[in-house]
Amino acid sequence: MKIAAFRYQGRAGVGVVSADGQQVEPYQLGDAEAALGALPLVEAQAAGRPLPATGPAIPLQQVQLVAPIPRPRRNVFCVGKNYHAHAKEFAGSGFDSSAKSGGDIPSAPIIFSKVPESVIGPKEAILIPAEVSTSIDYEAELTVVIGRGGKGIRKADAMQHVWGYTIINDMTARDWQGRHSQWLLGKSFDTFCPMGPWLVTADEMDGQATDVKCWVNGELRQDANTKDFIFDIPTLIETISAGITLYPGDLIATGTPAGVGIGYKPPKYLQSGDVVRIEIGGIGVLENPLR
Amino acid sequence: MKIAAFRYQGRAGVGVVSADGQQVEPYQLGDAEAALGALPLVEAQAAGRPLPATGPAIPLQQVQLVAPIPRPRRNVFCVGKNYHAHAKEFAGSGFDSSAKSGGDIPSAPIIFSKVPESVIGPKEAILIPAEVSTSIDYEAELTVVIGRGGKGIRKADAMQHVWGYTIINDMTARDWQGRHSQWLLGKSFDTFCPMGPWLVTADEMDGQATDVKCWVNGELRQDANTKDFIFDIPTLIETISAGITLYPGDLIATGTPAGVGIGYKPPKYLQSGDVVRIEIGGIGVLENPLR
Repeated sequence: MKIAAFRYQGRAGVGVVSADGQQVEPYQLGDAEAALGALPLVEAQAAGRPLPATGPAIPLQQVQLVAPIPRPRRNVFCVGKNYHAHAKEFAGSGFDSSAKSGGDIPSAPIIFSKVPESVIGPKEAILIPAEVSTSIDYEAELTVVIGRGGKGIRKADAMQHVWGYTIINDMTARDWQGRHSQWLLGKSFDTFCPMGPWLVTADEMDGQATDVKCWVNGELRQDANTKDFIFDIPTLIETISAGITLYPGDLIATGTPAGVGIGYKPPKYLQSGDVVRIEIGGIGVLENPLR
Repeated sequence: MKIAAFRYQGRAGVGVVSADGQQVEPYQLGDAEAALGALPLVEAQAAGRPLPATGPAIPLQQVQLVAPIPRPRRNVFCVGKNYHAHAKEFAGSGFDSSAKSGGDIPSAPIIFSKVPESVIGPKEAILIPAEVSTSIDYEAELTVVIGRGGKGIRKADAMQHVWGYTIINDMTARDWQGRHSQWLLGKSFDTFCPMGPWLVTADEMDGQATDVKCWVNGELRQDANTKDFIFDIPTLIETISAGITLYPGDLIATGTPAGVGIGYKPPKYLQSGDVVRIEIGGIGVLENPLR
């Protein structure tokens, strides 16, 4: 099942996307709940409550998709350097404040966060703060949506806590990421968390064996498969939940493959007018222009 | 003005603490709003709305104080290594994943975050997850409460965005902080953000020249003054807001002075039964037992 959040005739809506991707059947929700996107539905399912009924289908063309969880309840968890080839390109870039002597491949998951207000939806413009940073970069990432929460979740049980998946573009100001050592600031600029196009339930795809691709202005830059994760999804969930209780609707962006802008010599930073298009198998396409 | 959040006769309340610290005058708020602590009041003032009326005073002894903002709307911003002497002790500890060749003193503010659900109130127990970490440490920190929000706030204007102050104990699992490179996990364990005893408005104290002290079981461990900040409060606000919009009620824990457990040889980690007491001039005392 795919759940999309959208605006239609001036109101917020959330609905099930039809199998052919042509229509969306909106859930019957009040305006305040609908404004939270798919979050109340994920929370309801995690609590064992039934989903509300759906109304008449609307052609998808007629709605404006927004981020499926427009405002997460807390910062988005993100994973750094979780593909072997990317770990190497990043450690060699000079911007990696986490690179220490002893190798490029992290020995434990690197977890940081992005502020929830950085989320934007499909087609929304990523704003380049030219006066603040001159090294804006993209990162295509499969993102796990937590269903049932918990603490001390073991690897063997972890996939039962995965409600589904979406795509996040973990936009990054590389100069800030390097200069400030901890990555929160350089990852959290306003509009730096494009998300979408919708959520896909876990039964529809294998998040641990799916293609992740990213194009900038039509040029294929990232082309990998989540089979290349350094730390798999159960390991990430076990690690984060060891000390921190996870809640329904929590998001874990699982890291990006090789091919980000700083991986090139000279680096290929994003500029106003560029378009970043991410496609993840089983989910769909997330595309955002830069302005 | 001091604003405290509390429980009284089974209900959540928020009120003004009297000048002698003996009573609290509760604001007339609905239960749902009162459960958010001082947050709706900070938001109201930032928006220029009047505060609600207060009711008859209650002796402070009869209420149970809770965290003044029990559940921040997003992760708490925290500053790493912001006192000269602490920056040295930490860089020398072996746990500092941010320590690079070229000196212990950061050249730019180090900003990370703690998840909002890690907040607990005065006297509440900090839980030691013995099976998860063996190096639990305290960090006494003056914490800025943002009033009016904004983006691109300049140093010269920054103090106008400070609503007031509180105390946070930036509890840390040192092994996690070191092993995972980014600090989010080791800083965000459940109960790892004791906050209180209340909020103090900015007109009542000078956050940039106040004493910060911390005792463990009566032994004075940290004893400094915020005059020793490496990056002052205006610099922190300018830095964070350069790319990220700040909102009313945002919290910025400004870093801890020298004297944390890992500063000792051998390190003095916290154990079940210990009591951490923090006193900051102009605010008061935040005390929490470990369990």
